[in-house]
Amino acid sequence: MIFEKVLSTINKHELIQKGDKIVVGLSGGPDSVCLLHILSRLKEELDLEIYAAHLNHQIRGIEAQKDAFYISKLCEEMGITFFIKSINVPEYCEKNGVSIEEGARKLRYEMFYEIKNNTRANKIAIGHNLNDQAETILMRMMRGTGLQGLKGIEYIRDGVIIRPILDIERNDIEEYCKQNKLNPRIDKTNLESIYTRNKIRLELIPYMKDNFNSNIIESIVRMGNSLRSDNDYIESEALIKFKEVSNINSDSVELNLKSYINLHNSMKVRILRNSIKHILGDTNFIDQRHIDDIIELEDESKIDKVINLPRGIYVYRKKDSIILTNKEIVIEEIDFCYNIPSNGFIKVKEIGTVIETQVVSIDKYKRSKSDKSCKWFDFNKIKGGIVVRNRRSGDKIKLSGGSKKIKDLFIDIKIPKEDRCKVPVIADEQGILSVGNFRNSENYKVDAETKEVLKVSFKKL
Amino acid sequence: MIFEKVLSTINKHELIQKGDKIVVGLSGGPDSVCLLHILSRLKEELDLEIYAAHLNHQIRGIEAQKDAFYISKLCEEMGITFFIKSINVPEYCEKNGVSIEEGARKLRYEMFYEIKNNTRANKIAIGHNLNDQAETILMRMMRGTGLQGLKGIEYIRDGVIIRPILDIERNDIEEYCKQNKLNPRIDKTNLESIYTRNKIRLELIPYMKDNFNSNIIESIVRMGNSLRSDNDYIESEALIKFKEVSNINSDSVELNLKSYINLHNSMKVRILRNSIKHILGDTNFIDQRHIDDIIELEDESKIDKVINLPRGIYVYRKKDSIILTNKEIVIEEIDFCYNIPSNGFIKVKEIGTVIETQVVSIDKYKRSKSDKSCKWFDFNKIKGGIVVRNRRSGDKIKLSGGSKKIKDLFIDIKIPKEDRCKVPVIADEQGILSVGNFRNSENYKVDAETKEVLKVSFKKL
Repeated sequence: MIFEKVLSTINKHELIQKGDKIVVGLSGGPDSVCLLHILSRLKEELDLEIYAAHLNHQIRGIEAQKDAFYISKLCEEMGITFFIKSINVPEYCEKNGVSIEEGARKLRYEMFYEIKNNTRANKIAIGHNLNDQAETILMRMMRGTGLQGLKGIEYIRDGVIIRPILDIERNDIEEYCKQNKLNPRIDKTNLESIYTRNKIRLELIPYMKDNFNSNIIESIVRMGNSLRSDNDYIESEALIKFKEVSNINSDSVELNLKSYINLHNSMKVRILRNSIKHILGDTNFIDQRHIDDIIELEDESKIDKVINLPRGIYVYRKKDSIILTNKEIVIEEIDFCYNIPSNGFIKVKEIGTVIETQVVSIDKYKRSKSDKSCKWFDFNKIKGGIVVRNRRSGDKIKLSGGSKKIKDLFIDIKIPKEDRCKVPVIADEQGILSVGNFRNSENYKVDAETKEVLKVSFKKL
Repeated sequence: MIFEKVLSTINKHELIQKGDKIVVGLSGGPDSVCLLHILSRLKEELDLEIYAAHLNHQIRGIEAQKDAFYISKLCEEMGITFFIKSINVPEYCEKNGVSIEEGARKLRYEMFYEIKNNTRANKIAIGHNLNDQAETILMRMMRGTGLQGLKGIEYIRDGVIIRPILDIERNDIEEYCKQNKLNPRIDKTNLESIYTRNKIRLELIPYMKDNFNSNIIESIVRMGNSLRSDNDYIESEALIKFKEVSNINSDSVELNLKSYINLHNSMKVRILRNSIKHILGDTNFIDQRHIDDIIELEDESKIDKVINLPRGIYVYRKKDSIILTNKEIVIEEIDFCYNIPSNGFIKVKEIGTVIETQVVSIDKYKRSKSDKSCKWFDFNKIKGGIVVRNRRSGDKIKLSGGSKKIKDLFIDIKIPKEDRCKVPVIADEQGILSVGNFRNSENYKVDAETKEVLKVSFKKL
């Protein structure tokens, strides 16, 4: 019965192909022992090579030696090659500042991959069961998770890690071990999140069974399966959209706002996570509220703002894009100031522009004032020498509506922060004649009294 | 503080527009009283008209009269027009075979809509709070649900039902009532799923708070909000795809298999639910396993199969489509049998076909046997009169591989069930000469001994 159910799981999720070489994680407990036994029954039919891998965490003392003895006996009886490795997990965890649970998990999987490589195997089989699945989903739900977390443990990950007994209940596994006289070891420490998971297993689930739904395990697992399908769809859609709206570089992702902004929130959230994952390798320590902060950057009022996320991520709101990067974007401040002749040229190399000036009579001005490519000022209103320079803090210009700070003018006409120092400002001793091609001062306007006119034109090199 | 938070909820989800006329569901408990008080504070600013609606369920006896008295006093003080209706809910529920919870809910909403229509209001405000939201999600999760259920209660439904205090915790609502001296009534019966919800509220959530996550309410609600966004995206995508792959009639939906079959499972599930919803108005009593059964119909081996779902839904697997309908598709059995002359015509009106026959010499046959549009038989092997008729049960034909039931032949060559009675079968006294244009009998084959040949051709009218 269990055997057939495991076969059906293997087929449904395409966990095993003929000729696979499989490393089985073997703790010695009922799950992994049952898993090993079932796989070894399939050995001939599916032409499998099977290896067992056991980690002695150096936590259980004398019990660990009994585990090792049991495993060696079991594998020898079944004709399975086995590997036992001993690592001082508590020491490792203290040294690396991780919890026992986290450290043990990391070292275990490292060992599995190591043995997989040494034996040239292509799969790693892990003995998670149906109850583990329900417990995991409940645990994640209580911690607060999204669709990604609620889908639970995967049947197959990266085409390598497989979980053939994920559809089998713990009771049935224990029964199978009894029937087949496997005498598994009972691991009393149960490394995986000892406190939380045991509470869920021994208190929460029985309480839910008694009071709400006697089939709680099946209900939660069925929910997980349905959510897995939804998550799978949504993730694959998000990946397509991510590629459509982004320019991906090695340490930055630029999102094109024009195409990004109209996407559904559900897509945006995943595109942002994908961007961060691209830069950092994962999204650890990036919470929903960080993602929400990035989404708020969309607003026009946030142009030129930057926010800092954990792990050194900067998110820049540019005029037409959002840039995520782990390198700070430093705006290069260009600084220049040149005297301008009344008649002649001056080349401003910092901004690749030539400025040409000429003083003409009012009559000539009247004939050519329609030329929009240049600017005209009343020459006699100019006091002292004229300069072309970048903006300085406190710069103001007299407009028809009154005096205005150049900084505010830049914000009004939406010049990106990094471009502001490249706008040529023309000034005399009294003040500013013009800000680039954008605005002329009211103070130097040609009027009825004007005799001579200064003509200024900009040419890009 | 609460007031500002409710305002922010209203703005974020666009619950209220200026000039709205709102019916407030008023039980007299803290939630609905707080809701009414906050809305009445917004009355002038938002130019609202507010009505209160109270249902006496005739369950609480004298307490119900005290409720009514409290409500009339409260509304008069606040200058709010109110409606009180009294319905014998237990009697209604017994008569209609529904639970008290279900019946009360139905009657309450019916009353809200009735008052909304009578007052020409456009919104109905309900006092669900943040705890209700978390409890609902937990309850649905324990019963087994999908994304749709986990998203929880909606802020706004159909543009009519609004829930402005859905982001506020129960404690804060009680505090608000105290501060504003509203003295709400405490409804001890708490009609909504008395047993389950109270257990969740009073036992399960406090246990989870103590043992797993002190912010369990916020975590679950945050999860619900994230899932709501995902569900919203996935449902809108599914609706687009549903329209693309279906022919929708009043009482049936035909899914075009060619475009449907390659969709993601997550889309298929929703398209099938949409189809059933189109036919029945809702998907009550249709479980995931029914949907799974329909998905299994995709397999080629299921052509011509039909399955029955609850509430009179039939699902037909046709060659190129899946048809969901609440009308049984009865295959019209056509019945015909005509004598065929050796030389001449016979018109089979039932299938709109003319059959032409001619007896020719073996020499003529040799000159024209390459004509694939007609069939040739050894005329001297034919015994007695020839007929053209539809298939009869038990019909067999001798093929090169041996005798074969015509029924099996139809299955092999994939003739849809409803087309099988339209295939003309040519027979003599001994047996069958040919099945339509598909196969000829070995028994009437032209061979070295043949003198005369019967030529038969079919012409569609």
